[in-house]
Amino acid sequence: MNTEPEKWKVLESEYIVKRPWLVARRDKVQLPTGVVYPEYYVLEYPDWVNVIALTDDGRFVMVQQYRHGLGGVYTELCAGCIEPGEDPLDAAKRELAEETGYTGGEWEEWMVISGNPSTTNNLTHCYIAHGVKLTERQHLDTTEDITVKVLTEREVYQMLEQDEMKQSLMAAPLWKYFALKNG
Amino acid sequence: MNTEPEKWKVLESEYIVKRPWLVARRDKVQLPTGVVYPEYYVLEYPDWVNVIALTDDGRFVMVQQYRHGLGGVYTELCAGCIEPGEDPLDAAKRELAEETGYTGGEWEEWMVISGNPSTTNNLTHCYIAHGVKLTERQHLDTTEDITVKVLTEREVYQMLEQDEMKQSLMAAPLWKYFALKNG
Repeated sequence: MNTEPEKWKVLESEYIVKRPWLVARRDKVQLPTGVVYPEYYVLEYPDWVNVIALTDDGRFVMVQQYRHGLGGVYTELCAGCIEPGEDPLDAAKRELAEETGYTGGEWEEWMVISGNPSTTNNLTHCYIAHGVKLTERQHLDTTEDITVKVLTEREVYQMLEQDEMKQSLMAAPLWKYFALKNG
Repeated sequence: MNTEPEKWKVLESEYIVKRPWLVARRDKVQLPTGVVYPEYYVLEYPDWVNVIALTDDGRFVMVQQYRHGLGGVYTELCAGCIEPGEDPLDAAKRELAEETGYTGGEWEEWMVISGNPSTTNNLTHCYIAHGVKLTERQHLDTTEDITVKVLTEREVYQMLEQDEMKQSLMAAPLWKYFALKNG
């Protein structure tokens, strides 16, 4: 049966967890085939942002931090949550300033992706910023413990090649960067 | 303070949801700075797989399906869960056969990434398979409603360029494919 897939119908919906950092919804859904699936879970999050931040001499401003899901320390793009009512670009600029102290530059939307379209309802707005400058000190939240790393393009490429960039929401825009650079 | 970030200490841990498709753990954690954070949520999943499956004439075997988190129909790589005790490569071959009917070919591990290292504990093993062939019929689960799409390289590249590949766990290996092809 190779017709186009259709939307599911939601028969019931309830929140099973509603905490500041975890909102989980259970939907009872009916597929176009008629099959009823009693518990399909969707995780609700605000939209997120991240940024490939490049200095005038082409270095990448990145952040190193402990990530408790995988239980390791990773070097990543600067990233964060969009606050209620905030523009995605403003959120990305704010996060970069807070986490690294770098500001300014020419910003461009790079891609808009999802961590998982089947289980999460939010999007991540990825930017690229050319010519950012160190103008401020870090201002971190009490739960943040972030070391700034300024890497050469070659170092970032090696990180990708060696599969050290685990976060797919960051690996995708970085591999796109190198695909377009090489293209 | 630009020292290296350290692991957090887990002071308490409890499961708040434990269902077949959603396992959520609450950890009370202490940062190296001494700050105690009473509720840090980790979502536990089995490891996942996906595959860039290429036919002998260089076309991409992909699948189109409804994704309830974002509420839309998307064309994606073939993907799925590793079953308990199953080898990741075997899982990827099984998922490709079940979802598309394509089998065989030369398989290579392409990258290992995470949907979100801060909130999820699992990895996704991405493969590339050259020379797969249509040898079987689809065998779908009752909750699956999947249309096979066999696309040219140009169609896949356009999909990426137009930001239609929303799933970051698939956008990353596909952009890597084009980065290495162009490199």
